[in-house]
Amino acid sequence: MKTRAAVAWAAGKPLSVETIEIGGPQPGEVLVEVMATGICHTDQYTLSGKDPEGIFPAILGHEGAGVVREVGAGVTSLKPGDHVIPLYTPECRQCKTCLSRRSNLCTAIRATQGRGVMPDGTSRFSCDQGTVFHYMGCSTFANFTILPEIALAKVREDAPFDKICYIGCGVTTGIGAVINTAKVWPGANVAVFGLGGIGLNVLQAARMVGADKIIGVDLNPARVPMAKKFGMTDFINPSEIGVDKVVQAIVDLTGGGADFSFECIGNVNVMRQALECTHRGWGESIIIGVAAAGQEISTRPFQLVTGRNWRGTAFGGARGRTDVPRIVDWYMEGKIEIDSLITHTMPLEEINRGFELMEKGESIRSVVVY
Amino acid sequence: MKTRAAVAWAAGKPLSVETIEIGGPQPGEVLVEVMATGICHTDQYTLSGKDPEGIFPAILGHEGAGVVREVGAGVTSLKPGDHVIPLYTPECRQCKTCLSRRSNLCTAIRATQGRGVMPDGTSRFSCDQGTVFHYMGCSTFANFTILPEIALAKVREDAPFDKICYIGCGVTTGIGAVINTAKVWPGANVAVFGLGGIGLNVLQAARMVGADKIIGVDLNPARVPMAKKFGMTDFINPSEIGVDKVVQAIVDLTGGGADFSFECIGNVNVMRQALECTHRGWGESIIIGVAAAGQEISTRPFQLVTGRNWRGTAFGGARGRTDVPRIVDWYMEGKIEIDSLITHTMPLEEINRGFELMEKGESIRSVVVY
Repeated sequence: MKTRAAVAWAAGKPLSVETIEIGGPQPGEVLVEVMATGICHTDQYTLSGKDPEGIFPAILGHEGAGVVREVGAGVTSLKPGDHVIPLYTPECRQCKTCLSRRSNLCTAIRATQGRGVMPDGTSRFSCDQGTVFHYMGCSTFANFTILPEIALAKVREDAPFDKICYIGCGVTTGIGAVINTAKVWPGANVAVFGLGGIGLNVLQAARMVGADKIIGVDLNPARVPMAKKFGMTDFINPSEIGVDKVVQAIVDLTGGGADFSFECIGNVNVMRQALECTHRGWGESIIIGVAAAGQEISTRPFQLVTGRNWRGTAFGGARGRTDVPRIVDWYMEGKIEIDSLITHTMPLEEINRGFELMEKGESIRSVVVY
Repeated sequence: MKTRAAVAWAAGKPLSVETIEIGGPQPGEVLVEVMATGICHTDQYTLSGKDPEGIFPAILGHEGAGVVREVGAGVTSLKPGDHVIPLYTPECRQCKTCLSRRSNLCTAIRATQGRGVMPDGTSRFSCDQGTVFHYMGCSTFANFTILPEIALAKVREDAPFDKICYIGCGVTTGIGAVINTAKVWPGANVAVFGLGGIGLNVLQAARMVGADKIIGVDLNPARVPMAKKFGMTDFINPSEIGVDKVVQAIVDLTGGGADFSFECIGNVNVMRQALECTHRGWGESIIIGVAAAGQEISTRPFQLVTGRNWRGTAFGGARGRTDVPRIVDWYMEGKIEIDSLITHTMPLEEINRGFELMEKGESIRSVVVY
């Protein structure tokens, strides 16, 4: 069959909306009609050409929501009509990692996903010029896409696609980092570096679990009102107090250091500050932001020997099929907020405008509605 | 009163055994007759002059065992005749850190201990030339020393001083890193970098808690027989396979990476290897070794974002008054071995020979018996 899609033909070029071929679902695969998709920094990173693993031509997009239209042989947990969120981190429940119960980083289809193909080693997308590759196993910038059954979370049918698509990446990443990776406790003091989409979700999760001080750090004071709305109790602007004063300011505000900190930017210098502002003895710093290829973090080992803990998180430590439906429920029940984070919506034809808004920092999240 | 003591008059000079003055215990303090003391790398580090916080003249030594001879006003948990192990990490059970239950790094007397004095700001040691400072709150290179009540662990009276003194630092550091900090689980795969005294204690703790593969890494193959005796199942010699092959060798041996690794050397390059050899998704690397002042560790943040966890430990995460008596019990019950680690004993007059043996790598532990 045919589908409309925004094709990334080459690094650094705008996406091109066209009609391409999509093959039917093979055994274990599912055809999904994507109803809405967010535009994420990771899409931009790959499109820019900076991602050393970027493959072109490809259909980007990994933050979607849609409806199952057809299932391949052997698919048992989904049927046509089911509402789903695609998962770039699948959950097979059978690999060493899934069975370990210690990590969400399912390895079942990692090798082929990284090469832009389905688990059988081939792509379902093609056009006159040849093969078009999948991206992060999702390719939600196509109106119809194919995913393995293990990479789809079934969600309730009354949830609006143009909001819950954001749960496919940003919302779950921020909230999951707080509840799954850090396991922030009630009364903890939390520092959040970077008050963009991820940071705002970290803020609201910290509030949800009962954190005390929730300190936001950002160079842009325009982000303060929204951050306060999402739970920030204190704001630090490094450009006002001086970048080298940020750690001490957090230590002072918290009487010794944050119990938890979250780096939501991808800046290796900020990652160091985020570690060093945590409390001696037990402070944990969680890296969420993705640094540019080749960059390194560093610190004195003394920081760790005196009890600090440096870790990271991917997809918020969430097991997608298990945890994503619950976050959709939380949204529908009003426990978390998403609506005000979706600052722009647009049709697929205007997807490049969504990238521009993100690059200029004018949007929190742009969503393409098919 | 007077006491014999090995005085460190200045950085880089041998210790000088002489008789000096020691004041009686002030309120909250205890006079201890040290019966035996180990000689540790940390003593050497300070004596060498590399320790930026080193103060001279001082009485070094922090790995002792002895008998309470007199208690100051208000001391309630100890009485003359009690057998004790001095604690360079005290346990006041009242400070923010002790009450947090999340760390052993009691802060009750940290400031004064770091300045080489008792909690009231003065030293109990003096000689004709003036004040002699305390060291790590212990000063076990004096036959008699003064400690705060909160810095003494009361232990059983049938345990031999010349063995359990080692529990005052090295044994507890290695065993505690495994059971308190890492919480190694039965069936875990463990990698231990550096098979000196600390590494051997990490090995035997990993065996005690039921680890599967216990991989030792050391440049010195002469350490293999002892390491095997302490639980090592596999040995990697970086100088044989190539330093840059160590991480992959551990990944191969463990089918994906060690669940836990321990750096027992103090080398920042090894610390990086120790992190990167752990398993994607959940691997934890624990820094035990103390790096030289000013050195830094580094890695790509990707290592953490994909689920590895970088942390450190001091005194094995042990709360001294609570945990040290239990480790003494384990030794007396045969659950852990110490005897073969004490390779040399000597009288105080020969203490400088103990330092030489350590510097040449000829001893695991030398113990001064008073």
